[in-house]
Amino acid sequence: MKTFFPQIEKIQYEGPASANPLAFQFYDAGAKIGDRSMQEHLRFSIAYWHTFCGTGSDPFGAKTLDRPWNAVAGMPGAEAKLYAAFEFFQKIGVEYYCFHDADMAPEGDSLQEFQLNLESMCKLTLQLQKDTGVKLLWGTANLFSHPRYMCGAATNPDPHVFACAAAQVKKMLEMTHMLGGENYVFWGGREGYSTLLNTDMQREQEHFAKFLHMAVDYAKEIGFTGQFLIEPKPKEPTVHQYDYDAATVISFLKTYELQDKFKLNIEANHATLAGHSFAHELAVASMNGMLGSVDANRGDLLLGWDTDQFPTNFYDCATAMLVLLNQDGIAPGGLNFDAKVRRDSSDLEDLFHAHIGGMDSFALGLRFAHLVIEDGVLSELLTERYARYDHGIGKEIEAGMTDFSALSRFALENGEPQQRSGRQEKLENIFNHYLVKAIKES
Amino acid sequence: MKTFFPQIEKIQYEGPASANPLAFQFYDAGAKIGDRSMQEHLRFSIAYWHTFCGTGSDPFGAKTLDRPWNAVAGMPGAEAKLYAAFEFFQKIGVEYYCFHDADMAPEGDSLQEFQLNLESMCKLTLQLQKDTGVKLLWGTANLFSHPRYMCGAATNPDPHVFACAAAQVKKMLEMTHMLGGENYVFWGGREGYSTLLNTDMQREQEHFAKFLHMAVDYAKEIGFTGQFLIEPKPKEPTVHQYDYDAATVISFLKTYELQDKFKLNIEANHATLAGHSFAHELAVASMNGMLGSVDANRGDLLLGWDTDQFPTNFYDCATAMLVLLNQDGIAPGGLNFDAKVRRDSSDLEDLFHAHIGGMDSFALGLRFAHLVIEDGVLSELLTERYARYDHGIGKEIEAGMTDFSALSRFALENGEPQQRSGRQEKLENIFNHYLVKAIKES
Amino acid sequence: MKTFFPQIEKIQYEGPASANPLAFQFYDAGAKIGDRSMQEHLRFSIAYWHTFCGTGSDPFGAKTLDRPWNAVAGMPGAEAKLYAAFEFFQKIGVEYYCFHDADMAPEGDSLQEFQLNLESMCKLTLQLQKDTGVKLLWGTANLFSHPRYMCGAATNPDPHVFACAAAQVKKMLEMTHMLGGENYVFWGGREGYSTLLNTDMQREQEHFAKFLHMAVDYAKEIGFTGQFLIEPKPKEPTVHQYDYDAATVISFLKTYELQDKFKLNIEANHATLAGHSFAHELAVASMNGMLGSVDANRGDLLLGWDTDQFPTNFYDCATAMLVLLNQDGIAPGGLNFDAKVRRDSSDLEDLFHAHIGGMDSFALGLRFAHLVIEDGVLSELLTERYARYDHGIGKEIEAGMTDFSALSRFALENGEPQQRSGRQEKLENIFNHYLVKAIKES
Amino acid sequence: MKTFFPQIEKIQYEGPASANPLAFQFYDAGAKIGDRSMQEHLRFSIAYWHTFCGTGSDPFGAKTLDRPWNAVAGMPGAEAKLYAAFEFFQKIGVEYYCFHDADMAPEGDSLQEFQLNLESMCKLTLQLQKDTGVKLLWGTANLFSHPRYMCGAATNPDPHVFACAAAQVKKMLEMTHMLGGENYVFWGGREGYSTLLNTDMQREQEHFAKFLHMAVDYAKEIGFTGQFLIEPKPKEPTVHQYDYDAATVISFLKTYELQDKFKLNIEANHATLAGHSFAHELAVASMNGMLGSVDANRGDLLLGWDTDQFPTNFYDCATAMLVLLNQDGIAPGGLNFDAKVRRDSSDLEDLFHAHIGGMDSFALGLRFAHLVIEDGVLSELLTERYARYDHGIGKEIEAGMTDFSALSRFALENGEPQQRSGRQEKLENIFNHYLVKAIKES
Repeated sequence: MKTFFPQIEKIQYEGPASANPLAFQFYDAGAKIGDRSMQEHLRFSIAYWHTFCGTGSDPFGAKTLDRPWNAVAGMPGAEAKLYAAFEFFQKIGVEYYCFHDADMAPEGDSLQEFQLNLESMCKLTLQLQKDTGVKLLWGTANLFSHPRYMCGAATNPDPHVFACAAAQVKKMLEMTHMLGGENYVFWGGREGYSTLLNTDMQREQEHFAKFLHMAVDYAKEIGFTGQFLIEPKPKEPTVHQYDYDAATVISFLKTYELQDKFKLNIEANHATLAGHSFAHELAVASMNGMLGSVDANRGDLLLGWDTDQFPTNFYDCATAMLVLLNQDGIAPGGLNFDAKVRRDSSDLEDLFHAHIGGMDSFALGLRFAHLVIEDGVLSELLTERYARYDHGIGKEIEAGMTDFSALSRFALENGEPQQRSGRQEKLENIFNHYLVKAIKES
Repeated sequence: MKTFFPQIEKIQYEGPASANPLAFQFYDAGAKIGDRSMQEHLRFSIAYWHTFCGTGSDPFGAKTLDRPWNAVAGMPGAEAKLYAAFEFFQKIGVEYYCFHDADMAPEGDSLQEFQLNLESMCKLTLQLQKDTGVKLLWGTANLFSHPRYMCGAATNPDPHVFACAAAQVKKMLEMTHMLGGENYVFWGGREGYSTLLNTDMQREQEHFAKFLHMAVDYAKEIGFTGQFLIEPKPKEPTVHQYDYDAATVISFLKTYELQDKFKLNIEANHATLAGHSFAHELAVASMNGMLGSVDANRGDLLLGWDTDQFPTNFYDCATAMLVLLNQDGIAPGGLNFDAKVRRDSSDLEDLFHAHIGGMDSFALGLRFAHLVIEDGVLSELLTERYARYDHGIGKEIEAGMTDFSALSRFALENGEPQQRSGRQEKLENIFNHYLVKAIKES
Repeated sequence: MKTFFPQIEKIQYEGPASANPLAFQFYDAGAKIGDRSMQEHLRFSIAYWHTFCGTGSDPFGAKTLDRPWNAVAGMPGAEAKLYAAFEFFQKIGVEYYCFHDADMAPEGDSLQEFQLNLESMCKLTLQLQKDTGVKLLWGTANLFSHPRYMCGAATNPDPHVFACAAAQVKKMLEMTHMLGGENYVFWGGREGYSTLLNTDMQREQEHFAKFLHMAVDYAKEIGFTGQFLIEPKPKEPTVHQYDYDAATVISFLKTYELQDKFKLNIEANHATLAGHSFAHELAVASMNGMLGSVDANRGDLLLGWDTDQFPTNFYDCATAMLVLLNQDGIAPGGLNFDAKVRRDSSDLEDLFHAHIGGMDSFALGLRFAHLVIEDGVLSELLTERYARYDHGIGKEIEAGMTDFSALSRFALENGEPQQRSGRQEKLENIFNHYLVKAIKES
Repeated sequence: MKTFFPQIEKIQYEGPASANPLAFQFYDAGAKIGDRSMQEHLRFSIAYWHTFCGTGSDPFGAKTLDRPWNAVAGMPGAEAKLYAAFEFFQKIGVEYYCFHDADMAPEGDSLQEFQLNLESMCKLTLQLQKDTGVKLLWGTANLFSHPRYMCGAATNPDPHVFACAAAQVKKMLEMTHMLGGENYVFWGGREGYSTLLNTDMQREQEHFAKFLHMAVDYAKEIGFTGQFLIEPKPKEPTVHQYDYDAATVISFLKTYELQDKFKLNIEANHATLAGHSFAHELAVASMNGMLGSVDANRGDLLLGWDTDQFPTNFYDCATAMLVLLNQDGIAPGGLNFDAKVRRDSSDLEDLFHAHIGGMDSFALGLRFAHLVIEDGVLSELLTERYARYDHGIGKEIEAGMTDFSALSRFALENGEPQQRSGRQEKLENIFNHYLVKAIKES
C-alpha cells in the first residue's frame, strides 16, 4: 500500500536525554503511572480536521500546506486522506481520533450526496479501525462551514436550516454509533449572534434546546449510549456564541433540563478567549461533575482568536492533569489535540514534531500530577485551610444548622478573626518544585 | 443650615439649545414619555460611595478630592457627608440613592461600634428621607474593604469571617428595611479566588449559597420584601470572581435553588470586563426574567479595570433603554450611577457636570427607545425574520411535535434553504436614524 | 452595457428626515462646509478588495456572497468585476477607490502572467477612469496572500521571495503612476514574526528598510510623485507585526532615515487592536506631521481580530474629523472604506446600505468638527489650560532657558501649585452638546 | 540591634532535591556559569517600594500587611524600615536594591521638609551600604503619587508642577550619585493623558523632552555618570501613557535627540499590558542597543492591570535570560524584582518565599540560556535560515547594491521560490528539551 510518510518510522520513547527530535522524551505508552498505563490515562486523540484537512489558509492568505493525500479531489481524495490518517495514527502511536462529517466525506452537490459519501467513507473507516485497533473518541457534525449555516444551524431564523442541521446530526449519530464512537460532541459553531438588532436570543436558545433534546431522543432510538458533550467557546466565528464558557453552558443545560444528558468538552484556547484560565474551566466543569473530555491545545493570550497551537507548555499540561487525576481520569473522554501546525510549518515532518511535543508535555503533566497526589502535600495544605468548617460554627454553616442571628452573635462576641496568609508564593514554589521533581525522575 | 454647594442652584431642564453646562438638555423630569414621566421611567439613583466618599486615590496616588464634608473625622464627618448628600440629591433632582454600610458610618474599632454608628446614622438618614422625599433604591454591606475579608467573606476559608459577614448583612438588611429600601444588593467583592492552588472552589461556592439562603430567611423574618439582587463582575479585585457574568450567576442560582429569590443588577463596566456588551448582559438577564436593576456607568474597553465613568455615550444609553422598555421598565430597580468623576476632576462642580451628562444621555436613550417601540419598525423586522417558526415545520419544532427523522426527510426532500440577508448594516443605519430623530424631536 | 445593480438608482441626498434607507441623510456632496464642499473634505474611497472581491468566507466557513460579476473566472471575470465596481462608484457617488494588484487581475500561473494580466486590466481601468471621472486614491501590492509570502515578503528569510515582492511593487508603482494614483500604500501583511526562536528581527527589519528605500528610488526613476504611506497594524496575520502602531512605524522610519519619504495611513480597527483609540493614532500621526490618509472602518473592541466593519459610530467619526480639520484636511489622502459587509449581509443591496451608513456618519462628523472649530470653545479651553507656559518659568522651560537648579529654587520658594480640575466630564458633555447641535442643524 | 526577621536565617542554596521551602533550589550565588558567577550574571535587586512599603491596599480594600517596621510613623518609621530592608537584603542574599525618594523618606508638609528627610535618610543608607556591601542599582523620584501630579509631572499643564518635579529629580540625582547608584530610572507615572479633549499631546511631549535634557545636563554638572533609563508602560494610571512600549520610547528619544543618553528598563508586566511578550520587548530594546535593565516580575495575561507578581514561570525567565546572555549581560543594569506579594500573603515569611521563587526561576533561566548558547543548536538553525542573504542577490540586497529592476528580473527569470518550513513546533520542542536538560543538570 502507498505510504504517505515514508521517511518516518513509528515514533519511539527514548527518554529526556535523547536528542532525537522524532522520539518521545516523556511519553512511554505502556509505562505504569499508578495503576494505569500512560496510554490509559491520557487517551490521546488526533483531530482529523486539522491534521489531515488543514490547508494553512487564513483570512489573509491561501493554502500553504500541500498534502500528497489532497492531490486528487472527491472520493478518491477522501480515501487517500483516510489512509494517510490511519498511517499517521499508527506511526505516532495514538489510539483515538475525532472527526466532523465534512472532514471525512465530500459534500457533493446535495445533502443526499453528502450522506451517501459519508456512509461509504465510514464503512472504509470501520474496516481500518478493525485492522489497526484505532478507535473513535467522538464524532460531530460540521454545522458551520456550509453557507446555509451563515446565520446559525439550530438557532437559524429559518426552520428549513434547522432541518438540514437535524439531518446532518442524525446521520453523524448513526455513523458515530456504527464506528463505536465513545462520545458525540456539539460545538455551536454559528449558534450565536452578531447584533441584537436582528436577533431574538430567547427564541434561538429555545430552538437550540429543542435540537439537543431531539438528538438525545434519536440516540436512544438507535441505541447509541456514548456520552454527549458540549464544547464551550465565547466568540469567533459569531460575535457572541451562546456556549460562551462552562458556566454559561451549565446554565443553559439546567434551564432546559438537559444537565443529565450532557457533559462538557473543555478546550484550552476557548477557555482563555473567554477570559478564564484553562484550569479554571476544567475545574468548573469537574466540580459540577460535567468534565467529559478535553480539547488539548494552547492559545496565545496576546492574540484574540483561536490559534489552536499544540500544547507544549509544561505548566498548562501539569495543571490540567492535576484536575483530571483528581476526578479519576477523563474516560470515556480523552485528550484530543484540536491543534494545528503553523501555516508555515509546511513539511509533513512538522505534523510529527507537533504531536510529539503535545504528547510529551501531557505525559510530563501526568507524571507531575501523579507525584503531587501521591505526596499529598498540596491537598493536605488545602484540606487544612478549610478545616475550620469541619467543626463548630463552620460545621453548622455547612449543615444549614445556623442562621444570621446566631452567626451575628458569634461575630460580635468573638472579635476579629485571626489573619491567615493565603501563601500563594510558597504554593507556586511548591508547584515548581514538583515540576522539577517530575522531570528529574523521568 | 450649612450648605456644601453654595454656588450651585437646583439644576433645571433648559433643552438641547441651551449652552448652560449646569442645565439639563434632555432630562425633563416631569415630561411624559408614553404613560410615565421621565422620572418614573428612569428611576435615577446616586451612588453614595463614589460621589460622597470618593477621594481620588488610586493604586499609584493619594487623595486628590478634598471634600468639605470630609474635613472632620468620625461621626461628625459622617453627618456632614450625609447632609452634603441630601443637598446634592435635591439640587441634581434625583430621587434615589444607594449605599454600603461602610459608606455611611465609621467602622470604629469593632463590629459593635460599627453597628452602633450605623444605626445612629440611619436614624438621621430616615429623617432626611422624610424631609426631602428622597428614597433608598438599595442597600448593601461592604464585605470587601476590611482586611478581615482579604480571602473572601462568605467564601472565606475561615467561618469566623463568614460570621462577621453575616453580622454585617443582618444589620444592613435591618437598616435597609427601616429606610424603606426597595432592593438589597450583593456584589461579591472578594468572593472568588486568586489561585486554585489554595482554593476549594466547590466548598466556597456552597458556603456562598448557604449565606444567600440565610439572607433570604432573615429578610422574611424581619418582613423585608424588597427585591434581592446579585451584581455580576468577572475580575477585580480577585483574579476570578465567582459572579463572573449574568449567565454564571444564573447557573449558580439554579444550582443552589435560589433562582426565584434573586434578580440581577447589571453594570455596564462589569459587562465589558467580562467580554460582553452592556446590551448583551441586560438582554441575558431580561430574557431570563431576572433583570432587576442597573448600575449605569461606562468603562473604557481599551483598559482592563473598572473605570466607573459616567455614562455619556448615546449608543450605550439608547441600547440599554430599549431593553428596559421592552420589559416594561426597571422598577422596583433603577438606574444607579455607579460612577465616579476622574481623580483630576477635583472641583465640586464636576460632580454636577458628571451627573448631568449621565442623566441627559439616559434621557435621550429613553426618548429613542420610546420612539423605536412606537414606530415599531425594528420589532416588525425582527418578528418577520422568525416568522417561519410560526407555521409548518417551524411551528412543529417549537411545539416539540417533530423529530430528527421527520426533519431529515424534510431537508432531503426540499433542497437548499433560500439565502436571506441578516441586514446588519441596514439595521445599524436605522438605529442611527432613530437616534437622530430622537435628537431632532427633543 | 450590462448593469450589475439594476434595482438601484444613484443614491441621493434627502436629509435626516427621510426614511428612505437608500438615500443620504447627512452626506450632501456639493454642500459647502467652510470653504470646501463635503466631497472635497471627505475624499471618500471604496476598497476594491472588500466590496468587489469579498466572498464572505471566514476561518470557519465558505463563501456566502455570490456576486454576479464573479460568475466567470479569469480575465472575463476580472473585467466584469471592474465594470461592476465603476457602476457602483457612480451610483454611490464616490470619486476615489483603492486596490491591490491581486484584486484587479488574476494571478495566473506565474508572476509573468500576473503582470501581463495586471497591465491589461489597468489599461481598461484607465479608460473607465476617464469615462467616469473616478480616480485612484492609492494602489498597493498584495504581498501576503500568495503562499510564497508565508514567512514574509521583504522580511522573508529567503531573498528570492524578497525579489518576488520587489517585482510586484515595481509593477504596481508603474500601474499606480499610469492611473494617476495620488498615493501608494505599504501594509506589512506578513512582515512580522510568529516566534523569536526562528527570527532574526534586526536583520528582517533592515531588509524591510532596504526594500522601502528601493521603492522610493524606483518611484523617482519613473516620475511617480504620489505620497508613500505605511499602514500600521499590530497583529494578525502574524503574531507580531513590525508595523505595530503609529509610534512604532515612526521609530522605524527614523531609524532607517525614511521619515521624510513616508506618511501613515491610519486604520481605525488597527488602532484599537493595538490598544489605542482611533483618535489617539490619528493624533500621534498628525502631531508628527505624518497623517497621510485614513482607512475608515470600525472594529469591535470585544473581539480580538480585524472585523473591518463600516464606520457608523458618530463619536468615532466626529473625533476623527476633528483631528483632520485641525490639520487642514487629509488630501492627498482620503477616507478609504476598508470595510466589508458582514458575511450574512448577502444581498447586493447591503453594499449600498453599508457605504451609505459610513458616508453619512463621516459627513455628520465633518459638520460636527466644523462647528466645534468655528465656535472655538474647545480650543479656547485647551489654550487656556496651557497658558502658563506662555510666560514666566513656563516660557523659559519651553525656550530651554532654565535648568533644574533654577526650577528647584522656584519650587521650593513658591510652595504647592494650585489644584486645577481637568474637567473631563464637562468636556464630554460639551462634546455631546456639539454632536446634538450638528444634528439639529443638519 | 533589633531584628525584624528573627525566625529566618540567611537563605542557603540546597539544590533542587531539597524540600526546604526556605532554601534555594537553583540559585547558587557563587557558582560559575561560563566565566561569571551567578551573582555577577543575575545582578538581582530588591524593589524597596513593594517589599518594604507595600501595605496590601488595593482599590477595593484597606491595608492587610502589618509590618513591624511600620509601627511608628515619620522618620523613626523610615529608619526602622531601612534597617528591616538591609536585614532582608542580607538574609535573602541580594546585593542590589532600588528606591524612589518617597519610599525612603517621609514627605512631610513641604518639598523642603521632604528633601531634608531624604538627605538624612540617605546618609544613614550610605552607612548601611558600607557596612553590608549592598549597593544601589538605581534611584528614581516618585512623580506620580503626590496630588500635585494628578495631571502629570513634566507633562503637567502647569509649569509650577514641572518645577516641583524638577526639584525632586534634582535631589534624587544628587542622592543617587552620593549612594553610588549605577543607574537612574524615569518611569512616566502620570506622563500621559486621560482624554484628548483637554490635552495638547505635542506640547506635553516637548515639555517631557525638555525635562529629560535638563536631567542629563544636571547629571553632568554633578558628575553622575550612571546610566539613564526610561521604563515603558502602556496604560495605568493614565489611560494612555506616553511611554507606551519600547518602540514608542525609542521613537520619542530619537525625535528629541535623546537616544544616546537613555536606555530602557523593560518590565515583564508592562510588556504584556502593551500587547507584547516580555521577550519581544527585551529583544526590541536589545537590538537597538538600548536594553539597560530589567524589572523582573510577571503579570496575569487574563487581567488588565499591573499585577506585579513574582516571576516564577520557567519559560519567561529562560527566554529573558537568552536575550540577556546574547547581548553579553545586563550590567550596569540588573534584574530588579518589581514585584509584590499578594495582599493575602500577609506573613513576613511570604516575602522570603516570593523572592526565593523569583531568584530560583531566573537562576534556572540562566542555566538554560548558557546551555543553549554553548550547544549552539538554536543559533545555528537561525543562522542557516538567513544564510541565503550571505551571498548572491541576498548579499547584494544587504549591501544596497541592487534595485527593483534587477530584482524584478531575477524574480521573473527564476520562478517560484522553494517552500521552506518555519519549523516552529520543532523549535518549541527543542526549547523544552533544553529546559529539561538544564533542570536535569542542576
